[in-house]
Amino acid sequence: MNCVINTLKSAIKEALSGITFDYRDCAYSISYVIDVKQTLKHMVQTKGYAAQDAQTDLAPWNYEVREVGPHDVLIDILFCGVCHSDLHQIRNDWFPGIFPMVPGHEIVGRVAKVGAHVKKFKVGDLTGVGVMVDSCRECDNCKSGLEQYCLVSPVSTYNAMGKDGVPTYGGYSKNIVVHEDFVLHVSEKLSTAAVAPLLCAGITTYSPLRYWKVGKGHKLAVVGLGGLGHMAVKFGVAFGAEVTILSTSASKRKDAEALGAHHFVVTSDEAQIAGVKNSFDFIIDTVSAKHDLTLYLSLLKTNGTHICVGAPSEPYEVPAFSLLAGRKSVAGSGAGGLPETQEMLDFCAEHNIVSDIELIDIKYVHAAFERMVKGDVRYRFVIDMATL
Amino acid sequence: MNCVINTLKSAIKEALSGITFDYRDCAYSISYVIDVKQTLKHMVQTKGYAAQDAQTDLAPWNYEVREVGPHDVLIDILFCGVCHSDLHQIRNDWFPGIFPMVPGHEIVGRVAKVGAHVKKFKVGDLTGVGVMVDSCRECDNCKSGLEQYCLVSPVSTYNAMGKDGVPTYGGYSKNIVVHEDFVLHVSEKLSTAAVAPLLCAGITTYSPLRYWKVGKGHKLAVVGLGGLGHMAVKFGVAFGAEVTILSTSASKRKDAEALGAHHFVVTSDEAQIAGVKNSFDFIIDTVSAKHDLTLYLSLLKTNGTHICVGAPSEPYEVPAFSLLAGRKSVAGSGAGGLPETQEMLDFCAEHNIVSDIELIDIKYVHAAFERMVKGDVRYRFVIDMATL
Repeated sequence: MNCVINTLKSAIKEALSGITFDYRDCAYSISYVIDVKQTLKHMVQTKGYAAQDAQTDLAPWNYEVREVGPHDVLIDILFCGVCHSDLHQIRNDWFPGIFPMVPGHEIVGRVAKVGAHVKKFKVGDLTGVGVMVDSCRECDNCKSGLEQYCLVSPVSTYNAMGKDGVPTYGGYSKNIVVHEDFVLHVSEKLSTAAVAPLLCAGITTYSPLRYWKVGKGHKLAVVGLGGLGHMAVKFGVAFGAEVTILSTSASKRKDAEALGAHHFVVTSDEAQIAGVKNSFDFIIDTVSAKHDLTLYLSLLKTNGTHICVGAPSEPYEVPAFSLLAGRKSVAGSGAGGLPETQEMLDFCAEHNIVSDIELIDIKYVHAAFERMVKGDVRYRFVIDMATL
Repeated sequence: MNCVINTLKSAIKEALSGITFDYRDCAYSISYVIDVKQTLKHMVQTKGYAAQDAQTDLAPWNYEVREVGPHDVLIDILFCGVCHSDLHQIRNDWFPGIFPMVPGHEIVGRVAKVGAHVKKFKVGDLTGVGVMVDSCRECDNCKSGLEQYCLVSPVSTYNAMGKDGVPTYGGYSKNIVVHEDFVLHVSEKLSTAAVAPLLCAGITTYSPLRYWKVGKGHKLAVVGLGGLGHMAVKFGVAFGAEVTILSTSASKRKDAEALGAHHFVVTSDEAQIAGVKNSFDFIIDTVSAKHDLTLYLSLLKTNGTHICVGAPSEPYEVPAFSLLAGRKSVAGSGAGGLPETQEMLDFCAEHNIVSDIELIDIKYVHAAFERMVKGDVRYRFVIDMATL
């Protein structure tokens, strides 16, 4: 809203201060004022938890979202997962953010209103929104259903500028308005709260495992048994791979078994590590903090691939010999496109896969962040939006 | 030689100083002495250029190589290429070396003598020896013709310990004795001196281009137009790829055209770089000094691969987002196995491909190192061993 008004003010100021005053500019400004007033009249009032700047904690905040356009869907948010990237972004760890910031991109909710031309959804449908709410829709990647790799830039669900010049606000809130193309169908068969993390943690691990065709006959190791890691284990097992969890501590051994992992290796135990040297076809690395890849690369087979899906703020250090001696690769993968995200949600419904979650009151979110950073969560916090 | 004698002395000392003196030990030692004496009697006297330690320059050195065993080939060396790794190793850049060290692993020569059971070669044959002279021969990789990735460790042509406990000495010398399995056939059709660099620079670039099936329809960029880089251009063009050279300076533009490259981009020119963002399927990076990969990763297409074949002593720094935003990979590849090295030599004979070389007197080798480090060589120094 503020942003729209500011854009408007600048447009008018520019038109009026022009050395060659042109009535067309003026007319344009007036028509723009009318447009904006129309829009303002129809804004949807909502509330969320927002960070006012990078130094302050999240707190209740009232704001407006746009009225549903012809292709839009208004969603009443039921649940939103807590992703490590939420904390990175409200703290400006990656880049200077847009404040106030309402984080959250693991959203499940019901359709409250649809635009006149919406075809895929009706009021009452259970839906999901992930890490994007728009993209250029014109580049080769967008045309191939790889909107996450939009060559202009995908519009993130929060902390981004929409094409209308208004910042996007995420799922730690009551409502979101999204173009139907970026809304996913969610099955009623699964636990609704436990579906939420599939929209980021789920697709972020599903997509690379599918892209690299990880399955039967492959040995897959998972590094970091958190929100993403536990989903990587579930998908790896579902796809038929032999799954090993590489953990810094022995404390999660029982949980690993419960998740269906076939093996558990404590990385500080030299004998255990010696037993898995040159053994994995793939390692999926979900760690979001700085870490050294040398050890992990030594555990890959010849031609093996270490897939990074976490996003540490500092670069990975990769010794040349760790790659050369065995034709190994370090790859990255980010979320998934819309067709693949729907495929993943359908796969989960069919195979009864959801996240293991801890449902929280939104007032607990900062305590949850602290526990998340320490790895003290099994395996994803999900906010019950009824508590907002 | 010294090493054999030392091993022998230790064995005798250990046998004699044993608390429980056993005649079998003594008998063993005596038979060992006889064996060694037999071997000594049949050592081949030769000479080379050796570094006596990591601080001194290469200088003439007389030494012995083993007499040809039943499966061995004695080669009279004609030419040896000068590889950046030669300098890295005599200076202990990578790991503490074995001194005296005779470098050189781009060897072409004629067979002077063959063992009784040698099948592949006869006296007078033109042959090549690359970066390895042995391997475990029993692991999955050795059995698959990927001896360069031997899981025990390939035995390097120099600066390594052979299975007989004697250090290996390389191609800056008059002779080398190698098991026939690690000797390659070289065609008489090509310029013999210009073939030498194919044994390392050639196979090191040929192998990854083949493994990643780089060819028609692919855009390939080459970083570092030196010994490896110019071979990558030649092979990329021969395989049908559209080849761009990414260079830090404009000075090599003409040479790039002469090598057959389709495009030339100066990386310090922002406009030129903007024109090739997200455009390459593959980048082959031949640079052996520390460098940042961020720029190069931004030039890869979605799903693109940056292939490292140089070996800087310091780790690559790879920002997570450079990989995630576009599902990109950083891979490494080291030399090639024996079947593929022979395939490459045959391909070169068929397509009339050799290295562009500057033939030098061995006394010029340190001046050549200096020019090589500055990139002042078009594109590989080759030592004429007649000058030794």
